Amino acid sequence: MATATETKWIYLFSEGSKDLRDLLGGKGAGVAEMTRAGMPVPPGFTITTEACRAYYAGGRQVPEGLWEQAESALAQVEEQTGKRLGDPQNPLLVSVRSGAKFSMPGMMDTVLNLGLNAQTLEGLQALTGDQRFALDAYRRFVQMFGKIVKGIDGDLFEEALHGAKERAGVKTDPELSPAQLSELVEEFKAIYKKETGEEFPDDPKQQLRAAIEAVFASWNTPRAVAYRRLEKIPNDLGTAVNVQMMAFGNMGEGSGTGVAFTRNPITGEKELYGDFLSNAQGEDVVAGIRDTEPIAALRQHMPEVYRQFEDYAKKLEEHYRDVQDLEFTIERGKLYMLQTRNAKRTGEAAINIAVDLVNEGLISKEESVARVEPRQLEQLLHPRVDPNAQADPIGKGVPASPGAATGQAVFDADTAEEWGKKGRAVILVRVETNPNDVHGMIAARGILTSTGGTASHAALVARGMGRPCIVGANGILVDLKNRQFSANGATVKEGEEITIDGTTGNVFQGKVPTIEPKPSGNFQTLLGWADEVRRLEVWANADYPRDALKARENGAQGIGLCRTEHMFMEEERLPVVRAMIMAETTEERERQLERLLPIQRGDFEGILEAMQGLPVVIRLIDPPLHEFLPNYEDLVAETTELRVTGKDPGRLAELEKLKERVEQLREANPMLGLRGVRLSILYPEITRMQVRAIIEAACSLRKRGIDARPEIMIPLVGILAELEAVKGELEPVAKAVQEEQGVEVPYKFGTMIEVPRAALVAGEIAKEAEFFSFGTNDLTQTTFGFSRDDAEGKFIVRYLEQKILPANPFESIDRAGVGRLMGIAVQEGRAARADLEIGICGEHGGDPDSIQLCHALGLDYVSCSPYRVPVARLAAAQAATAGGTTTK
Amino acid sequence: MATATETKWIYLFSEGSKDLRDLLGGKGAGVAEMTRAGMPVPPGFTITTEACRAYYAGGRQVPEGLWEQAESALAQVEEQTGKRLGDPQNPLLVSVRSGAKFSMPGMMDTVLNLGLNAQTLEGLQALTGDQRFALDAYRRFVQMFGKIVKGIDGDLFEEALHGAKERAGVKTDPELSPAQLSELVEEFKAIYKKETGEEFPDDPKQQLRAAIEAVFASWNTPRAVAYRRLEKIPNDLGTAVNVQMMAFGNMGEGSGTGVAFTRNPITGEKELYGDFLSNAQGEDVVAGIRDTEPIAALRQHMPEVYRQFEDYAKKLEEHYRDVQDLEFTIERGKLYMLQTRNAKRTGEAAINIAVDLVNEGLISKEESVARVEPRQLEQLLHPRVDPNAQADPIGKGVPASPGAATGQAVFDADTAEEWGKKGRAVILVRVETNPNDVHGMIAARGILTSTGGTASHAALVARGMGRPCIVGANGILVDLKNRQFSANGATVKEGEEITIDGTTGNVFQGKVPTIEPKPSGNFQTLLGWADEVRRLEVWANADYPRDALKARENGAQGIGLCRTEHMFMEEERLPVVRAMIMAETTEERERQLERLLPIQRGDFEGILEAMQGLPVVIRLIDPPLHEFLPNYEDLVAETTELRVTGKDPGRLAELEKLKERVEQLREANPMLGLRGVRLSILYPEITRMQVRAIIEAACSLRKRGIDARPEIMIPLVGILAELEAVKGELEPVAKAVQEEQGVEVPYKFGTMIEVPRAALVAGEIAKEAEFFSFGTNDLTQTTFGFSRDDAEGKFIVRYLEQKILPANPFESIDRAGVGRLMGIAVQEGRAARADLEIGICGEHGGDPDSIQLCHALGLDYVSCSPYRVPVARLAAAQAATAGGTTTK
Repeated sequence: MATATETKWIYLFSEGSKDLRDLLGGKGAGVAEMTRAGMPVPPGFTITTEACRAYYAGGRQVPEGLWEQAESALAQVEEQTGKRLGDPQNPLLVSVRSGAKFSMPGMMDTVLNLGLNAQTLEGLQALTGDQRFALDAYRRFVQMFGKIVKGIDGDLFEEALHGAKERAGVKTDPELSPAQLSELVEEFKAIYKKETGEEFPDDPKQQLRAAIEAVFASWNTPRAVAYRRLEKIPNDLGTAVNVQMMAFGNMGEGSGTGVAFTRNPITGEKELYGDFLSNAQGEDVVAGIRDTEPIAALRQHMPEVYRQFEDYAKKLEEHYRDVQDLEFTIERGKLYMLQTRNAKRTGEAAINIAVDLVNEGLISKEESVARVEPRQLEQLLHPRVDPNAQADPIGKGVPASPGAATGQAVFDADTAEEWGKKGRAVILVRVETNPNDVHGMIAARGILTSTGGTASHAALVARGMGRPCIVGANGILVDLKNRQFSANGATVKEGEEITIDGTTGNVFQGKVPTIEPKPSGNFQTLLGWADEVRRLEVWANADYPRDALKARENGAQGIGLCRTEHMFMEEERLPVVRAMIMAETTEERERQLERLLPIQRGDFEGILEAMQGLPVVIRLIDPPLHEFLPNYEDLVAETTELRVTGKDPGRLAELEKLKERVEQLREANPMLGLRGVRLSILYPEITRMQVRAIIEAACSLRKRGIDARPEIMIPLVGILAELEAVKGELEPVAKAVQEEQGVEVPYKFGTMIEVPRAALVAGEIAKEAEFFSFGTNDLTQTTFGFSRDDAEGKFIVRYLEQKILPANPFESIDRAGVGRLMGIAVQEGRAARADLEIGICGEHGGDPDSIQLCHALGLDYVSCSPYRVPVARLAAAQAATAGGTTTK
Repeated sequence: MATATETKWIYLFSEGSKDLRDLLGGKGAGVAEMTRAGMPVPPGFTITTEACRAYYAGGRQVPEGLWEQAESALAQVEEQTGKRLGDPQNPLLVSVRSGAKFSMPGMMDTVLNLGLNAQTLEGLQALTGDQRFALDAYRRFVQMFGKIVKGIDGDLFEEALHGAKERAGVKTDPELSPAQLSELVEEFKAIYKKETGEEFPDDPKQQLRAAIEAVFASWNTPRAVAYRRLEKIPNDLGTAVNVQMMAFGNMGEGSGTGVAFTRNPITGEKELYGDFLSNAQGEDVVAGIRDTEPIAALRQHMPEVYRQFEDYAKKLEEHYRDVQDLEFTIERGKLYMLQTRNAKRTGEAAINIAVDLVNEGLISKEESVARVEPRQLEQLLHPRVDPNAQADPIGKGVPASPGAATGQAVFDADTAEEWGKKGRAVILVRVETNPNDVHGMIAARGILTSTGGTASHAALVARGMGRPCIVGANGILVDLKNRQFSANGATVKEGEEITIDGTTGNVFQGKVPTIEPKPSGNFQTLLGWADEVRRLEVWANADYPRDALKARENGAQGIGLCRTEHMFMEEERLPVVRAMIMAETTEERERQLERLLPIQRGDFEGILEAMQGLPVVIRLIDPPLHEFLPNYEDLVAETTELRVTGKDPGRLAELEKLKERVEQLREANPMLGLRGVRLSILYPEITRMQVRAIIEAACSLRKRGIDARPEIMIPLVGILAELEAVKGELEPVAKAVQEEQGVEVPYKFGTMIEVPRAALVAGEIAKEAEFFSFGTNDLTQTTFGFSRDDAEGKFIVRYLEQKILPANPFESIDRAGVGRLMGIAVQEGRAARADLEIGICGEHGGDPDSIQLCHALGLDYVSCSPYRVPVARLAAAQAATAGGTTTK
């Protein structure tokens, strides 16, 4: 950074450009660009983000030289406009707005009409010939300055305004007479004095300084900070400040204001889309005080202005090569362009626009792929409420986690869990949630809270778990005592069905039909382009043939994780699995395993057939054996009861035996216990059976001409010798089966990298492993020492709230810790075995940020849940075009 | 390695030297050195360890050129001796012995008298004029060759010998007549043919080849491999083979054989110490078949030979600058030196010898320090059975874990645990142990098994836990059914007291007086020299003032870990701690914390006073809160019982409340749950109280002129922001207390590095931490994904047995994984903060191998249990003299 005295803190609009967005913020760069393009922009200047950073670096002191530069810039604006700040004859009035690099709610809103005082008010009246207008402008200024710059409770002003209207016996602001407005101004100033202890500042320059400092200060309001955390915007960017000549849309007929998108941001249709309000200031549009007209109405009112605006809109879209979100004001027939920025849009619109812009020749396919947020795609993949259902919502809240869900309302977590265990679909309804509710949130199909925002506990946890969620539904009155809620006149008792739509925030009574996502043609086109661009393959995690087929339909190029233990858990198999675990001798265990063999073989045949021609990574048994046995505490309770009552001694003896085995097997920390490869070493007969089942399945398919490609994954390896020992047991089985069957099967042995040591000795392990698959869930658990079961509900939420963690490491890979270990493993693994196949099969495999990291690290593929495959395809393409460095 | 054709596989004794120990093995280097020094050594040659490695590399094929070189070396030996292998007139007979770099049981024993057959037997008879001698030599040769080279069960030969004596009606071997011996030789050859299917080889060269190959093969017997694993000897060293002219100690009077140490290996006294057996071969001494005389007896029998031997012994000790273990044979008045090697010695002897050799000017202080194994020091620090107790052992086994213990015999783990919980001292007696016994081993004071060796489950687990242990006590007959054991005529029933001495392997009936270790003056002298040499400081882990004083007495230079939660667990405090945890509001919790404050302050005053002038690292609360509450399963059982019986509803309600809180707090994986710094963040009031107590204690002491130096350690940090947040809470408290008290306290804030992420982001963390302390117990758990509670008993033992792990990573730091993380943390932590104080406070801090690593990594100190401080001082000195590379 240059030293303070020589730093350029301020750019006139005519000096800036869209390339200076870092320095001027989005708004400042936009007006500068429009100014450069010769469009009618009210003159003004931008104070840089660097000045804001210097303000914080200096302990909330405006940096040296800033005021001097501001005076000089102001003088030039005065010259351009022919008006002067504080001039009683021809006063310059300005707006002061914040404008960071990224659009950001929570920072200072606009202060309009700055520069007014008793003297300039006279000038304004004289110039406009409209006393009421001038007084209303003054009233608005005092109110905004008080509320926004000084933080006075806005209700105080609103109450005074309300009182004035009541006293005057009128209903709307415009009906107040100049005298009544004049009186109101004095009342507002009195409020100002009472709340701040100071007189309202008459000096326009003092007003300006105060407003600029208030913008700087607003960068660090709790709301702004919370927003940045959520959106992962760095805290040290700072905001710019825009000071701009006022243009008045409220100077009677022939004046007006509006906002418009160059295309429809909901559907993506190519049409001007927006709102217009005649004889009004921009704040009226935003505040929704008066009903707006569609932008098309402007064509009727002022066809010439509309034509001009349409022309500018087209030029700006072409200039920026993207849909623009525009603000404009018409002052007595003269159009002023106030803002242009890339438009926010729905997922559907984003896709349609991205594809259309390519077809129109405006952008390339690579750019098109970069224009859609992967998370937006996800919206389209969730079920949503059928728009033709004609159901009226009984309430609305903040959409916090997308998708629609129907279930019985329950009012506490324990009931949610209890009902959920019985297989009932429930929606957990709470005023707010806290860590003690997490077990209920897990059991619920959806979550609805009457308070909280998008960063609340409920929102964070629900998004993490992929549950639809609505928060801050203020209209929902939760009555815990009577176990019901009321909303908009309706009452819903516990057990009654409701439907929530986490994409829109709507709450419905009863079951409302939902529609499954049906991706459009443009959706497929865009993904096709993404496929052309990406280097990373996208595989899916699937345990059953139906999931594998879904994955394949979504474009998966393999199965990265097929968990075999889910198969063990199915009802008709569990007794055999339990008998196997309870076996007292290896022979007895082998007998039970023989019964499981044909079952597993059938499972594997199904999934290998579904994925024919593509690799299927099958993980050998992973969880601790006690997970297949009944819960220990239940056994304690049941045996205690039978013992005390003396009932059913036969059952008691049976349970005592079961309890004894569970006692032997249960662990203090099962996450770090006898599981994964450790099971293979202690009970090699189990995995020998599994490998036999896999290879027999592949042989049987290949005999039928089906190209089965199993890859056998040994979980939790941390020591080369573990892999050597297990391969020593399993390779002979694989060979023997092929000989028995007279079929050759192309298969691989590989391992999950899911404990830190595996990454640290990856160079060793790669000697025996033909592939690595990062199990980033477990790797995150062990790298941080976080048990996911315990941590997410108990302290990660608090960590996110307190900014101790920038993101939940179970959602997005922690780069400094887990990512570093992955980097070591990739580098040293490939050094030992150049053709080592490397992927990721943790849940992070579907997270765009994590996919970017995987690309940068040079992985071969990411594997995620089948419904996230399209998201991953897009994210992988974006990672490739963003030019992530690859080590491959 | 040179190519096979040019490699020198064989060295004549006259070509070798002590510097070629890697190549010639210990024995080969020893005889070569004696040969070079002009001592009378029977001529011979050594086949190198390189030849053995080549034998394995080539798939158990003797390398090319070896036989040719052997023929040529043999020819030279024949020339030197004037005898010829297979010469019927003047036959050369040789011994063939294995000889690795490190002395190693489990490999091939000696084969003597090789070269005998029907023809050479005649020659030997003629030369010696002793038909009985020659026939006995032949008999021994056939027996040894069959047993050792061909692996025939030795009992078959012993039975035949026994039968021959019975038939002859004699009691000892020498009484057998030549005819009877001749018959016995034929009988032995018949056994040989029956067992191997081949004729006994008559060709001496064929005999020699077979013996050499057998030595190579013996390198990889299971026993040899197990021994190497235990002693951490690499598997790829290979063994040398020594072929040497026979010298006969059994040629009548004027012949004999013996072994002797140049100093007493038990006490270290400077005197020739050993055994002599006249008219015998070496194997007779070793086998203990005949009673030996003390070496001094040789002075009576053959004063000239004794003088000569004494002279050689002195020269060899001076030459090797260490006590030697010598073997010799006297053949008809001529002394032959057969072996010299550094003598094994007890811990006491090692210390005394190391100090004496310095005083005699033979070695330097640094060398002296290197001469004592740290683990030997440890022997001297355990209690042992009073040698004056005059108790006769009722049995003896393999000493597997040092120290003496007295307790009631119990015969199963559950009883051991049950009785242990009641505070009874128990000794667990088993045939063998397995993972299901671990809870009983933990509860026992000592462990005794009737089977198993030093690498058995019992031995490994006991050493890991520091429990005295004897294994393989064959004379102990365990009768599980009657719950008793008998030994040497005595019977011990369950509940009766026994005493075991794990240092000697002796088992005693009843309580035998034990003596506490009393380190000698030489012990202190040696440690003083160690202190001069070492760079690493040695601190101790102590929770109580009495432990701190013990540590200081043993030379600790600080307290590296003072755990505050042990203080919470004490009986009178636990109710307050529980009330604090059960508190429903922060206010209520704070009220309970106020009650704890003076208690904690008192604790800290005690330990800070004991360590005045030295640093005391106090760790803030670490364990999950549920550890302070009753066990959940007990609550389930108790509430179920009360509910079913309907008894005592008041108590039921109380327990239900407690159960509810435990339910909230209990965790799936407490090791990875809400503990350490995470508690500080969720319940800052707890650690605020602790810091207040620490600083108040320090202020109070300093007011009394006592130099208190607390260092405050925040456990389980993995994220910089955690440390920032906690310091933000705690620094103001520390400052406030100092202001209140008007005293300045020198204190530090630091953190444990005990999760992998902490090591990976150590550069970040060091910005806020003034010291790091490696918590290698937890770091090992998270790096491997091993829960110590679950892993040690359940699968680590199996991993050690199967060689999947070379050592228990909870005993000795795993260098490739944990050590690598430590290296990253040291390097990046110091880069961020040059004066960062770095230590280790895991149990590894007292393990010599781990201390060597800590030295190499450049740590400032190791901290271990108070009684291990001397061991650590010595190990630290050895690390420094071994020239471990330091990064400091």
